[in-house]
Amino acid sequence: MNLVIDAGNTSVKLAIFKKTEIIHLETVVVDLFVEGVKKIFKEFPKIEFSIVSSVGSLSKEQMKVVAVFCDLHELSNRSKVPFKNSYASPQTLGVDRLALATAAYYFNPHHNNLVIDAGTCVTYDMLNDFDEYLGGAISPGIQMRYNALHHQTANLPLLDKKELLDYIGNTTENCIHSGVINGIALEIDGVVDLYKARFKNLTVILTGGDTLFLSKRLKNTIFADSKFLLKGLNYLLEYNKH
Amino acid sequence: MNLVIDAGNTSVKLAIFKKTEIIHLETVVVDLFVEGVKKIFKEFPKIEFSIVSSVGSLSKEQMKVVAVFCDLHELSNRSKVPFKNSYASPQTLGVDRLALATAAYYFNPHHNNLVIDAGTCVTYDMLNDFDEYLGGAISPGIQMRYNALHHQTANLPLLDKKELLDYIGNTTENCIHSGVINGIALEIDGVVDLYKARFKNLTVILTGGDTLFLSKRLKNTIFADSKFLLKGLNYLLEYNKH
Repeated sequence: MNLVIDAGNTSVKLAIFKKTEIIHLETVVVDLFVEGVKKIFKEFPKIEFSIVSSVGSLSKEQMKVVAVFCDLHELSNRSKVPFKNSYASPQTLGVDRLALATAAYYFNPHHNNLVIDAGTCVTYDMLNDFDEYLGGAISPGIQMRYNALHHQTANLPLLDKKELLDYIGNTTENCIHSGVINGIALEIDGVVDLYKARFKNLTVILTGGDTLFLSKRLKNTIFADSKFLLKGLNYLLEYNKH
Repeated sequence: MNLVIDAGNTSVKLAIFKKTEIIHLETVVVDLFVEGVKKIFKEFPKIEFSIVSSVGSLSKEQMKVVAVFCDLHELSNRSKVPFKNSYASPQTLGVDRLALATAAYYFNPHHNNLVIDAGTCVTYDMLNDFDEYLGGAISPGIQMRYNALHHQTANLPLLDKKELLDYIGNTTENCIHSGVINGIALEIDGVVDLYKARFKNLTVILTGGDTLFLSKRLKNTIFADSKFLLKGLNYLLEYNKH
């Protein structure tokens, strides 16, 4: 059994894999990480290996707790990856994006893959048919856009995401919903069109917390899998065992 | 002579109109507003009328300083407008957007107009060929997106806007530039396409601080005028004199 830990910008996911299958998944806030890990090892004492991917939210001390219970691989830019990394600054590439590219490599090798992770940020990552990671883009995610509109203006309210009735908003609230939801969907549609024009037979994979909410609003055919990053981490754990 | 004051979320524009022509324009930070107004009236003692549009950044006390020197119209949702306002909550419509719709009305009356103001926020405002204001959308502007990516994540740097070389970013910095600049341009292109499909012979007007930077990146034909909001305010001042 593997314990796969994905520490994002807002929360930490703890997933237990039996081979390539997730048999348990829970999410904890960063402050309750240590308690969450202890509970997991009590419940699943057969965990032998673990991988941690943190984009900066977990401290070294928090990570070390995992190593008390099992063999730990801390994902970094020195970890081995199964694809060719053509990023100009591989030392600054977020480890979450390493995991996404790895998942794409195993899911659809030797093909053109664009992975879109819609979470705190929306990340775009391109793995081409030579199994070469090229990079992509990072833009603000749905909740980040709502937060920004409130915190960086004098008068706009803070809203939670909502299904749109019409992209022409007729109240301030509906204008904000349209600007955020319709805006992000049009951005993703536009990015996919650009990549499709450049890469033959492109497979588009949508993952992250807003997968379900966004997938029905996109015009292009996409493959939606909210567990894609976790699966990539599990592959990286296996790949780095040897 | 009219003094037109546009107090946005980050700075205040002071424009002097002689009929419909801007003969002087300066920008001050909110904290130096009173000093800026006093200087303007010393330099241009012939100013007789003024209009202030504030989206919340100027205090009542700051606005009152203008009334010491000339006749002042404080733009609000009770001000008269030359178009039909079909917004469902006219009392919450930002006064900046009243001014943009007014400018569209005078610039291209009895036609379908979409006004896009790319400043702190990107606002979309639709005035149809019945001279009816319908509403639109509000999404985060360029600098707001850069700020949000830095302030709402643990590890991303704060960047200033930059011309893009390629939409596939190969460093963290280039990924952020692509996510923000390419993202906002694709959003605007997508929104314009949606409105074009719904409104015949749509005229698209781009204004706001990022007009020049964005206009060359957009695929649709647009009319770019960075002074559009100020012109709308001057029209509203004249319209509310009677």
